Amino acid sequence: MMRTLKVALLGCGVVGSDVARIMTTHAADLEARIGAPVELAGVAVRRAGRPRPGVPEHLITTDAEALAKREDIDVVIEVIGGIEPARSLIVSAFENGASVVSANKALLAADGAALHAAASKAGADLYYEAAVAGAIPLIRPLRESLAGDKVNRVLGIVNGTTNFILDKMDTTGAGYSEALEEATALGYAEADPTADVEGFDAAAKAAILAGIAFHTRVVADDVFREGITEVTAADIASAKAMGCVVKLLAICERSKDENGEESVTARVHPAMIPLSHPLASVRGAYNAVFVEADAAGQLMFYGPGAGGAPTASAVLGDLVAVCRNKVAGATGPGESAYAQLTVNPMDDVVTRYHVSLDVADKAGVLAQVATVFAEHGVSIDTVRQQGRDGDASLVVVTHRATDAALSATVAELRTHDHVRGVASIMRVEGE
Amino acid sequence: MMRTLKVALLGCGVVGSDVARIMTTHAADLEARIGAPVELAGVAVRRAGRPRPGVPEHLITTDAEALAKREDIDVVIEVIGGIEPARSLIVSAFENGASVVSANKALLAADGAALHAAASKAGADLYYEAAVAGAIPLIRPLRESLAGDKVNRVLGIVNGTTNFILDKMDTTGAGYSEALEEATALGYAEADPTADVEGFDAAAKAAILAGIAFHTRVVADDVFREGITEVTAADIASAKAMGCVVKLLAICERSKDENGEESVTARVHPAMIPLSHPLASVRGAYNAVFVEADAAGQLMFYGPGAGGAPTASAVLGDLVAVCRNKVAGATGPGESAYAQLTVNPMDDVVTRYHVSLDVADKAGVLAQVATVFAEHGVSIDTVRQQGRDGDASLVVVTHRATDAALSATVAELRTHDHVRGVASIMRVEGE
Repeated sequence: MMRTLKVALLGCGVVGSDVARIMTTHAADLEARIGAPVELAGVAVRRAGRPRPGVPEHLITTDAEALAKREDIDVVIEVIGGIEPARSLIVSAFENGASVVSANKALLAADGAALHAAASKAGADLYYEAAVAGAIPLIRPLRESLAGDKVNRVLGIVNGTTNFILDKMDTTGAGYSEALEEATALGYAEADPTADVEGFDAAAKAAILAGIAFHTRVVADDVFREGITEVTAADIASAKAMGCVVKLLAICERSKDENGEESVTARVHPAMIPLSHPLASVRGAYNAVFVEADAAGQLMFYGPGAGGAPTASAVLGDLVAVCRNKVAGATGPGESAYAQLTVNPMDDVVTRYHVSLDVADKAGVLAQVATVFAEHGVSIDTVRQQGRDGDASLVVVTHRATDAALSATVAELRTHDHVRGVASIMRVEGE
Repeated sequence: MMRTLKVALLGCGVVGSDVARIMTTHAADLEARIGAPVELAGVAVRRAGRPRPGVPEHLITTDAEALAKREDIDVVIEVIGGIEPARSLIVSAFENGASVVSANKALLAADGAALHAAASKAGADLYYEAAVAGAIPLIRPLRESLAGDKVNRVLGIVNGTTNFILDKMDTTGAGYSEALEEATALGYAEADPTADVEGFDAAAKAAILAGIAFHTRVVADDVFREGITEVTAADIASAKAMGCVVKLLAICERSKDENGEESVTARVHPAMIPLSHPLASVRGAYNAVFVEADAAGQLMFYGPGAGGAPTASAVLGDLVAVCRNKVAGATGPGESAYAQLTVNPMDDVVTRYHVSLDVADKAGVLAQVATVFAEHGVSIDTVRQQGRDGDASLVVVTHRATDAALSATVAELRTHDHVRGVASIMRVEGE
């Protein structure tokens, strides 16, 4: 039998405490599956002295740096989150020859390439299934199961908080603020919900998914990001009238220009999707991701996208993998960025749009508005006109057009005499 | 750069020809992802001389045995199917030190342990993602992503042919024979559909899934198997009346007796599931599988369950994995059967039942029938009675009971004076 593998746990919050608990209760299973005993050798916390059921007192330390650098540590699990000190701790771990399992989407999306390089230099593993979509196996299927295929699109709901809020707005007719309040009260939203509702969390996940799917470096800053704070009850009602529902989507796409040159885009924004689309029925805090590949066709992965135990499940799956690699004296797949595709800006994205305008209720306004769309090469699919007391609302749904063309159209409409205002613009996906 | 890895392809039918095609068109990507060039070095076919677009003539041989034994071969891909000669060829490949990628569910379910042992002895890999649910990553998520979790249940639609037939019966009201004819005409069913419609294919997949999920050896013969040939239009109509749909399900479950002793069951049979269940909307030849684990909760995997390109995608994902292992000088996870749980027979399975009886339309019959159920400890949930000309039909839906108790109940009902016949028995799942 192989010597005992020693694990340092950095962070003991919601996820960390479940990791510690399961490492203890499932120790025999983990040993059988790894082929060596695995031992929790230290737990770094910010504040000592708190009761941590199931975590032996003598393992707890507030000196994370010293723990990450301990020479006897084989694997470091990082569930602190955020950029620093997580990054420095992970780098220390690699310098020490340890492999790292992380759930840190923000860090991976900001600095994944450097971390992968550090891992590679150390001959160590960097695994992070838990960074995207909680318990749902997604990184490993993309990185390994689809390694012989060509992924063209990844599209999904990867943030449970915003899905809960939009779901609540959809089912109760509540406005954004009201739905956010309920999400906060129920613990689905954090006290400062910015990372979720402004789409930062989803954008980090989109960057990670795009990078792996397209074998290209994609960082969070490459991802177009629009949150849900501007989504109104009227948008939701308008979506309903179209047989749609509003979801915050992460979309990573490969496209080809007229010369056959491939490029990719990655974006996060609210979008209308048809009720008949499988993503439309993803409720509450669940996540679901579609992956479209040349040979495989369309796959869907669905499950709990967050929470202590589901995220711990992903962390422990990675722990078993990196420990098996240690036993085998090998490392798993590292960064794969050989394709080096250009990451295009949002302007180049082609999709459909739902544009809601307040216009003067006069003859000829529709014709004038339609002309503006036509002049920018944006073809109209349907128009719905509703008059009320001299004002009217005009809902235009377009055919596929570039974001740049749509933006130019809207910019001109805003200056148009008979257009009193642009009430909302929302992309239409999943058709 | 690493030396070129040589691949032998055994079988060049629907799946094999797509494997050969993609290996050629995606050669540069495969090389970048593996870290070494990979070359198709030989293709064994049953009959030479057929046109095989995209497969170089000089690679084709009818001597599969010689190809599997060629000393320069690093990886053998087996997509012949069936027990022999596939088994002997795989064993030859291992004896020769090659790793094996197989899509052969029947063989893996019959003799997986021996093949794993041969792989292990040779220090080689045996991978078979393509054996279950086509392109859907399922083996790897179970074997690796959930390796730190405890899987309690795997439940899914794993046979596209029967799903197509049942779907057709459901949407058109057609009988079984008529729906089978259409499936055959459209190429969804083979000329001899036995393996699909009698549940052999699904049972093999259930055995493989149960084995991996529960770290226990499970063979096809351990799996209770009931096909769809006895499903009638009346069953489908009866399911509809209950707000259900009939699906052929593969169900692998872990259970615990009163002493805390764990055991498992695996079964394949038609079952009624509520329309609200996500599996109810899995249409046509698609597959979908639920996995329930302690920490992860409920995950779902969905996608094309068969077909040349989807199955080839899974084969090529495995090819990349075993080639990466060759480059790293390591092997991936092998058989994990340490848990050695008892595989219980169908008698011990606990579920709900929909029993349709033809009875005499007389006062007191319902009471008598209810007494028979009660005497066997089978509690009744609902009864629907419908009279017609002296005869009546009685539809009983039970609460959860063991299969043994239900069987005993039905056996006694068959001998009962006022019971003219047992029209159908179907299990009710997914609630």
